[in-house]
Order: sequence, then structure tokens, then C-alpha cells
Amino acid sequence: MIRFSLESQDGQARAGRLITSRGLVETPVFMPVGTRAAVRGMTPDQLAQAGAEILLANTYHLWLQPGERLVEKAGGLHTFMNWGGPILTDSGGFQVFSLPKKTISSEGVRFYPPERKSEALLLTPERAIEIQHALGADMIMPLDECTPHPADHSLAARGVEHTIAWLRRSIEAHRGHDATLFGIVQGSVYPDLRSHCATELVQLDLPAYAIGGVSVGEGHAALAKIVRVTAPMLPGERPRYLMGVGLPEDLLVAVQHGMDMFDCVIPTRYARSATLFTRRGRIRMTRRAYRNDFYPIDVSCTCYACSQFTRAYLHHLYTTNEILGTVLGAIHNVSFYLRLMRDMREAIVEKRFERFRGEFLADYTGSEAKP
Amino acid sequence: MIRFSLESQDGQARAGRLITSRGLVETPVFMPVGTRAAVRGMTPDQLAQAGAEILLANTYHLWLQPGERLVEKAGGLHTFMNWGGPILTDSGGFQVFSLPKKTISSEGVRFYPPERKSEALLLTPERAIEIQHALGADMIMPLDECTPHPADHSLAARGVEHTIAWLRRSIEAHRGHDATLFGIVQGSVYPDLRSHCATELVQLDLPAYAIGGVSVGEGHAALAKIVRVTAPMLPGERPRYLMGVGLPEDLLVAVQHGMDMFDCVIPTRYARSATLFTRRGRIRMTRRAYRNDFYPIDVSCTCYACSQFTRAYLHHLYTTNEILGTVLGAIHNVSFYLRLMRDMREAIVEKRFERFRGEFLADYTGSEAKP
Repeated sequence: MIRFSLESQDGQARAGRLITSRGLVETPVFMPVGTRAAVRGMTPDQLAQAGAEILLANTYHLWLQPGERLVEKAGGLHTFMNWGGPILTDSGGFQVFSLPKKTISSEGVRFYPPERKSEALLLTPERAIEIQHALGADMIMPLDECTPHPADHSLAARGVEHTIAWLRRSIEAHRGHDATLFGIVQGSVYPDLRSHCATELVQLDLPAYAIGGVSVGEGHAALAKIVRVTAPMLPGERPRYLMGVGLPEDLLVAVQHGMDMFDCVIPTRYARSATLFTRRGRIRMTRRAYRNDFYPIDVSCTCYACSQFTRAYLHHLYTTNEILGTVLGAIHNVSFYLRLMRDMREAIVEKRFERFRGEFLADYTGSEAKP
Repeated sequence: MIRFSLESQDGQARAGRLITSRGLVETPVFMPVGTRAAVRGMTPDQLAQAGAEILLANTYHLWLQPGERLVEKAGGLHTFMNWGGPILTDSGGFQVFSLPKKTISSEGVRFYPPERKSEALLLTPERAIEIQHALGADMIMPLDECTPHPADHSLAARGVEHTIAWLRRSIEAHRGHDATLFGIVQGSVYPDLRSHCATELVQLDLPAYAIGGVSVGEGHAALAKIVRVTAPMLPGERPRYLMGVGLPEDLLVAVQHGMDMFDCVIPTRYARSATLFTRRGRIRMTRRAYRNDFYPIDVSCTCYACSQFTRAYLHHLYTTNEILGTVLGAIHNVSFYLRLMRDMREAIVEKRFERFRGEFLADYTGSEAKP
């Protein structure tokens, strides 16, 4: 079981510590995503060097390939992928709800994975917990209903009812096990549903809470509002995890409103398409302007890619499709995210979070920075 | 300029040292290939960790992209790709001779690079030297005519005449420059042509010699014969480089006959297609048999991939097309090659090379090892 201690608060923004049997995690924290028990293009050594303290892995993908029993036989996810730090797994629900062919009932979700033609699979709250137990994650998520965006009030309300009922069943299925089970607040963009869901979940007295149903196309302003409304409904002394978020500007506003944990594929996915983050905004490494640019990707960054290579070299690697481009890009983007979290944490501890946020956003353009 | 010293000899097999301004290289040595100033999927740190002491880069590819002037402006290849050790560049000839559309004359080779539609380029001995000077390699190769296999005697003879004439022009073009220029012996499978070419080249008193025109489809036995016949024609106190070779069994026979330097894309290319080397032979990581195999890729290997991960994990990475599969596979294969060279060197120094070769080949099957 994890323990969480709040170290400092600045406005609603919080600096804390997750104490786990696999090491300490300082919050706010960003969890790089190792979908298939691998963060795309990065070795565990490179992840540790970039400052990663905790990873996320996807239950859906690992269930289908290589299968949770194989991972269990390998000694669990940590041994399988050689990551000694804590790991959080999702429930698999998000991926299942993203599939075109699925049937949702109170029992769970029946779906047809594109990877396995014609075979239907059933994901229930109990099965999601069982798979995560086999994977051996330190922190696990219950199956919830992640409603699409936009969703009308009645559809979102049904999602909340399923989410609450499924959480009760997840708690039963998890009884006697060590991993930390989160509760996930759903409710789409509707404050009354978020409030209802949060109230029900808090009564179940879980060790940690998450806000789900975001990063589904609602946009920055709607995301900010959901977090602003929902975060205060969650117990202050428990960790708060905002699922699947996001861009740097999303992370800033979420931390501002009191969230502690984040995960997102953006750093590694953007790295594969040559989009890299800098303090001045994103840059597209394939742009002709970088051909002759002998500065590092981000002059303020101290990661392996920035300390050893130039934009001109990255431009060359990306334009010639060298694997090393993606590798160095991933190292940089993940390092950038982890550094941003550390900078936010330091600002919270030093009670200057708002100034930090303002200064960061003044330099950082959400869109592409000028070469 | 490099200096070469022979440390030990066992039969024809030699253990030596290349002393360069960028560090010491122990021979026999394998040079991982960084075609486009990057070894596919490996960072310079990982290359150094795998034991690489010297790299090879391809003049043809770097000439076309990003262009030798850009690399020069970046401070040369070493700075551009952040590799502090010595670098050898080829002349670009091998790639040009592999193109379907080309015209060979005494002037040089006119060709149509597939990368640049409709534009003809001319590669002359002088241009090859000029490009390599701009790239800033420590060891450079003259333009030679690499005849295809099979080639009749008259075609091979023309190749030898071009090779000798072009080498004279290369020496002129290189006058006053520091890099070590090799002479390349051509002559296909014909001992008389090899002998004629070697005799002419040795009179030009170059600091190092190479055997070219191999690894063009002649097969192991023909390769072994070419080396056995040609190596003794080269001065014993100069380094001998066998270009583009090869598989482990090729390296063993070439070292047996007195060759010192090697390069080949096989370790990294095979890694991309999930074929990994072990002391018992090659294995295809995608085979179903490895799904449940929790041993390392090669039990006798101490590389990062073998010390930290299992075949089951590699199987999973390769079957799900995770970039990390290629990365770990490249780390292993390159480490395997470099370890083989170190083992050969040790056996030569200890005067037991023939026993080592016999024992290695007894364990190692040229084809796929049993899972």
C-alpha cells in the first residue's frame, strides 16, 4: 500500500510524497506511459536518467498481448520490463470504450478487439482487477465508464451509475490484495454528476482518487473547469490523479487546482512525429529552419539529447527516418515533462506557484514556437 | 595519422593496436556502421557501453543528406554525431556501384541517385577525397571500382586498372591532409588480378590496406579464398581492413588469415528483423518458442540487453513492433560482435587462436539455432 503525505500547499497547488514499497515519488508527478510494458523507444536506464519515478502501463494491451498470465509467470510487470520503481496500471476500460464495436451493460463491456478478429471478449470490474493483480502493479484502477465527448446528461449519468456500481464490485474483488485501488470520478462536463459521483466515491473511503473522462476532446477550457470543480470534492489528504492529461498548459492548470498525478502518451507520441517541446513552445524538428541550427533542442534543458546533440543533428535524423531521432526525441520530451513537474513542485514548496505558472506561460506558446 | 603496432601473432592471425589521436583501437576490431552518422537505434553512450572503439560512416549517404558541408559546419562527423572515438569513412563507391543507373569511365562514376530524381551526380576520386575531408574522418578510403559478382576476368581487370589509377589521383588529392588513406585491393575472385593490384598498391607505400570487392554474393568459401590469397600480399606491419564483412564465421576465417579490421551492417540490420546472435547460432526472436523463455538472449553474454531482459520480453517487444525491441536487439548484436573480436584477440595473444576458432564453430551453427 502507498502512503501519501502533503509537504506543502500554495493556493490549491500541492507538493506531496507518495511513499511506496518500490521507492518515493514526489508529487506533482508525471508518469511516462509504457503501453505494452515499454515506453516507446526508451530503455529503463534512459527513463531513470530522464528523472522518471513511476510508470504507467496499459491493462488492455497487456491483456491481449502477451497476456497477463505470461507477465505473471515472468515475475510481474516490474521484472518483465525491468523497471524497479512503482507502476500504475489502468483498468483497460478507456481503450475498450474507444472501440467502435462494444456493448455496455451493468455486467461490464463486451467488445471485439481489432487484434483478434471475430472473438468477443468481456471486460467486467472483477476481470479488470484480476488482470491487474496478475500484472502486479503497485497502483490499480477500477473499471469505469468513460463517456465520450460530447455526451448528453442522461448518457453521462448512466456512466456515473455504472462507475459507482463497478467500483463497489472492484473493491470486493480487490479485498485482501496489497495494491492501491483508486476511485475514479466520472460525470463528463456536468458539475452535478461530478459532485454526485465524488460524494459516492468518498464514502467508499479509497486511499486515492482519480478524475477520469477527460482528454476526450473537451478542450483546455472545459478540462480546466472540470478539474476546478471536481478536485475540491476529493479528500485533501489523498493523492489525486488526472487521467490521460495532457499538454504542458493542461498540467499547469491541473496542478493549480490541486491535482497530483498525471499520465499521457503525448511526450513519446509527439517524439515519433518529430514534435519536440521547448520552454518557448513546441518545435517541429523536420522544419528546414533547423537544418543549420547548432543549438540544442531546448537551450534550458539538460537532458541527454540536449546536452549531447544539436537541432541540426536531430533534423538530420528525423528527415532520414533514423530510429535514433525518435529515441532522442522521446528522451527529450519525457525529460521536458519531468523537469516541468519538478519545477512546479519547487515553486509550490517556495510558495511562488502562480508566478512560476505566469512566467512559464509567458514564454511558452501552446502552438508551434518560431524557429 | 594513425600508427599501427603488432602485439602478437598466432599463425597468420594478428593482435595489434591502432594508435590514433582519438584513442587506442585494439585489433582485430569490428566497426559498427553508422551509415547516416547514426548506428541504427543506438546512442553513442550505448555504443561505448557495448565496447565499440571505432565507427564507420557512409560517404555516399552523408554526401546526399545532410551534405558534407553541413557536417563540416557542424564541426565534423565526430561533433555532429557526438562520437569521440575514431571514425572511418568509405569512399561512397560501393553504394554508387550498387545503383542500377551509372556510367563508369576513367574519370569516375556518373550516377542517378534514387533520392534525387533526374539529377545526375559525378563521383570522382578527387571528389570522394574532398567529401571525406569535409566530413573529417580519421581514416578514409579512395574511390575504387567494386566489380559485381560474378564478374568475368576482363571486367574485373578493368576494375583493377581503374582502382589503381584512381588511387594515384586520390593520393594527390589527399596530399597535405592528416587522415589515414587506405589502398584497396580489388580483383574479384582472380588471384592473378588480386596479386597485380596488391603489387601496384604496395609500391605506393600507403599506411594501411584494405581488401574490397567482397561481400558481394561470392559466399563464404570464395571469400575465405580471396582473403587467404590476398592478405599475405599486403605488408605485415600495416593494418589490413576487410571491407563489408560479415557473418561471425566470415570474421573468424578472415582473422585466421591475418585481417585486422572489419565493418558490416549485419548486427544492426539483423536486429531490425528480430534475428539475434548467440554462441549457439542465430535465433529469430519472433518464434513462438521464445514466448515463455525467461533466459537471456544469450546466456554467455553480459550486454545490457542480456543482463536486464529475457527472451520472453524481447519476443513481446518484437511481436508488438515496439521500437525498444530493435534498440535492445542492436545493443545485443553489436555487443556480440565486439565480444567475439575481443575473444579472438585474447586467443591470439595467448597463442590458442586455432583452438578458439574450432571451439566457437563447434558451438555455433551458421544457420538458426534450436530454440
